[in-house]
Amino acid sequence: MKEAGSSEAPLYLKTAQLIENQIRDGVLRPGDRIPSIRSMSRKRKVSISTVLQAYFWLESRGYVEARNKSGFYARVPVADLTPEPKFQTSDPAPTEVEVGEILAKVIRAVSDPAKAPLGAACPGPSLLPHHKLNRIIRLISQKDPLHSSYYQFPPGSESLRRQIARRSLDFGCNFSARDIVITCGAMEALNLSLRAVANPGGVVAIESPTYSGVLQTLESLGMRALEIPTHPRAGMDLNVLERSIKKHRVKACIVMSNCHNPLGYVLPDDWKKALVELTAKYQVPVIEDDLYGDLTFDLQRPKTAKAFDRAGLVLLCSSFSKVLAPGFRVGWVEAGRFRAEVERLKFLTTIATSSLPQLAVAHFLESGSYDRYLRRLRLAFSEQVQAMSQAIAKYFPSGTRLTRPWGGYLLWVELPKKVSALKLFRQALAQNIAILPGPLFSASGGFKNHIRISCGYSWSDELDRALLTLGKLCEKTLQ
Amino acid sequence: MKEAGSSEAPLYLKTAQLIENQIRDGVLRPGDRIPSIRSMSRKRKVSISTVLQAYFWLESRGYVEARNKSGFYARVPVADLTPEPKFQTSDPAPTEVEVGEILAKVIRAVSDPAKAPLGAACPGPSLLPHHKLNRIIRLISQKDPLHSSYYQFPPGSESLRRQIARRSLDFGCNFSARDIVITCGAMEALNLSLRAVANPGGVVAIESPTYSGVLQTLESLGMRALEIPTHPRAGMDLNVLERSIKKHRVKACIVMSNCHNPLGYVLPDDWKKALVELTAKYQVPVIEDDLYGDLTFDLQRPKTAKAFDRAGLVLLCSSFSKVLAPGFRVGWVEAGRFRAEVERLKFLTTIATSSLPQLAVAHFLESGSYDRYLRRLRLAFSEQVQAMSQAIAKYFPSGTRLTRPWGGYLLWVELPKKVSALKLFRQALAQNIAILPGPLFSASGGFKNHIRISCGYSWSDELDRALLTLGKLCEKTLQ
Repeated sequence: MKEAGSSEAPLYLKTAQLIENQIRDGVLRPGDRIPSIRSMSRKRKVSISTVLQAYFWLESRGYVEARNKSGFYARVPVADLTPEPKFQTSDPAPTEVEVGEILAKVIRAVSDPAKAPLGAACPGPSLLPHHKLNRIIRLISQKDPLHSSYYQFPPGSESLRRQIARRSLDFGCNFSARDIVITCGAMEALNLSLRAVANPGGVVAIESPTYSGVLQTLESLGMRALEIPTHPRAGMDLNVLERSIKKHRVKACIVMSNCHNPLGYVLPDDWKKALVELTAKYQVPVIEDDLYGDLTFDLQRPKTAKAFDRAGLVLLCSSFSKVLAPGFRVGWVEAGRFRAEVERLKFLTTIATSSLPQLAVAHFLESGSYDRYLRRLRLAFSEQVQAMSQAIAKYFPSGTRLTRPWGGYLLWVELPKKVSALKLFRQALAQNIAILPGPLFSASGGFKNHIRISCGYSWSDELDRALLTLGKLCEKTLQ
Repeated sequence: MKEAGSSEAPLYLKTAQLIENQIRDGVLRPGDRIPSIRSMSRKRKVSISTVLQAYFWLESRGYVEARNKSGFYARVPVADLTPEPKFQTSDPAPTEVEVGEILAKVIRAVSDPAKAPLGAACPGPSLLPHHKLNRIIRLISQKDPLHSSYYQFPPGSESLRRQIARRSLDFGCNFSARDIVITCGAMEALNLSLRAVANPGGVVAIESPTYSGVLQTLESLGMRALEIPTHPRAGMDLNVLERSIKKHRVKACIVMSNCHNPLGYVLPDDWKKALVELTAKYQVPVIEDDLYGDLTFDLQRPKTAKAFDRAGLVLLCSSFSKVLAPGFRVGWVEAGRFRAEVERLKFLTTIATSSLPQLAVAHFLESGSYDRYLRRLRLAFSEQVQAMSQAIAKYFPSGTRLTRPWGGYLLWVELPKKVSALKLFRQALAQNIAILPGPLFSASGGFKNHIRISCGYSWSDELDRALLTLGKLCEKTLQ
């Protein structure tokens, strides 16, 4: 496989494009079986894993579908049914953030198990390794019975930090255990990082749209958001970012370059390198949220922007909530030159992270089956995203636009202009369906006709019905 | 037993004072056996539990000591060996807090298992019910295997909130489960409460001395501390508090009226009522830290100030870290009229508290053995505080002064003026002994010759040697 970071297309993409062209040209028609992995590998003289990666790529873009034990088949690509969301760019001004009002309603909605789970970005419990985690927990309760009697004072469990450091090679870093501070999930990592680099009133550059938690955290800390226009596949507009840094006194920049929430893109290494060089030039710290980084549909784990950080200005935040155990609340941050301050703030905010979950995650990573588990999980999410995309294309009114996620399990849906996302949110709730309305993802009240749909749960008739209902609710508005 | 809240001395105190007078008058001399509980109960026509409470009171004040299975014996009271710390009162001015510098060193010191554990306010692991907690954890891992797969979104586990509400009657409150928000320990409860009632720059009235975490939290949030003089037995000077509220725009007041850290006092109901009435008059929210409230040496759990709150202005914070499991990080807050804001900030700071520890604490409380367990724990701490007080009286130079804790397991030691607590802290570290230096407990650099000693661990030769070493280090400074 080619080295990441090169600008030439990797081998698997060439194979994938060959099939894509055959489908586009009508050589392969919907329902046709595409060549088996083994025969394709022989024909193209590439490895099995390269073909597999090519077929995953095709699958996640909706060109082919895997059928149980009988191989891959061509299908009508989502791209032909639903276009991608529109993108407009312009120079922003800092905004006081005020999205808190509907938040309480949203929290209640997403935590209600009676609602169809299209709201919270939670993986479906059936996909998670709770069986193995419970086995580990029982083991710890016997081998390390005093776990509950001790604080794991910052920086946190050494065995866990060692495991994270070991894995950091996968995303282009080379951490030592000492560099890492364990937190109560990525949300605490984000909070501590922001407080370490900026003060109340400070201007923070963010993607637009961005994860609603980022906006609300900024609001709760009294910081101001500077929304940088963000392309649904190409990420934050770095030209606008540079002009904005020159114009406003930007104290920090928050980015999510892998499996973006809500846009789902994975940005190329060139973009990451350019971002880090640009921000280093102006000495602006970058808070990188890599929460979904392990969940790209590629076989190869993408690098982080942190991999290109020479100045210690990138604070890399992540957690195990989206891949292993949301209920554990175990996250971490590598805060570069801000490590000591983050560690101090961690002590002053929650003293320590719960011991048992830290030890359990460390055990799970040590056991060596994490990579195998991740491969299965990525495949499941890629299939779920595909199924949901197809259903949205089928049920939603024409004029609907849809992202093409390249990792994670979130879809960003642009509805026809006349549909109000907030109204749809309320109507959907009344029908026992939880979704996230677009205005939660903007500091300035944008994305009024956008919604975020979580594909964390396995495809089911219930989800199919929920999407059908959502589609009907949209149609009704348009009449 | 008399109703709490009355100003007349309770029955047990009359019995206790009888014995106290006999010891003071020399009727009972050190080493003499005092009447058995049963005979005293007959003689005074009071219940067994009243006598027991009287003897605990005497024991915690050092007048008597319990000898294994052979009853209580008179001893030389600490009061005759070491006087209480001095108290001076004056009107304060708001201060920017800056105690953070030595904190990193202190955290490293208290988390090092090689150091004699006189620093961190941790209960000794041998006192904690980890055996039972591990049994509960194994049970949950089998009966509720999906615990790790779900966020316990704010306000947190309902079964735990129900148990806390049920117990709230013990401290004079009558909460419903809905009133309570579960947090990552009392430290998060304190942080969220402060952020809910005050903004950066806001003036917050605090006890002096106060728990170092309070000061450092204020510093990290950019708030200003107003240190109200605090008597080592009678608590915060409410006259000074009222004058200060009139003079400065006080946004909140933080108090710890039960088992104060570091002073150890338990304030009477009258004080609590007066505080709540005074602050309600000026509409100043009170953040009440009741972290050690379950650990008073009385048989009866003291009321909280919250019990007298009619205006919803008291935010009661507590946790299970000091009584059950420091490593769990399970705390809670009843935030009165600020509940919605605290719940929102909880979501924005850590999303949720770890699920398994919440469920385990709920289980433990449900099992009904908590009260029995607490009685044993209180007795152990009262004995440990006594043993440490005696050793300090024996080993420390004359001029040393000592608090008389009425709960918890912390001692506040005033050393002769010439002893520098910061220097002693460093010298003690070099001898593998962790203590907390007084300046950590003041926003304005006070308490330069004070230290806090934790009596959380069971008495041992190692602790005896550590206190002897500390005493010698003090003596050396004086030569």
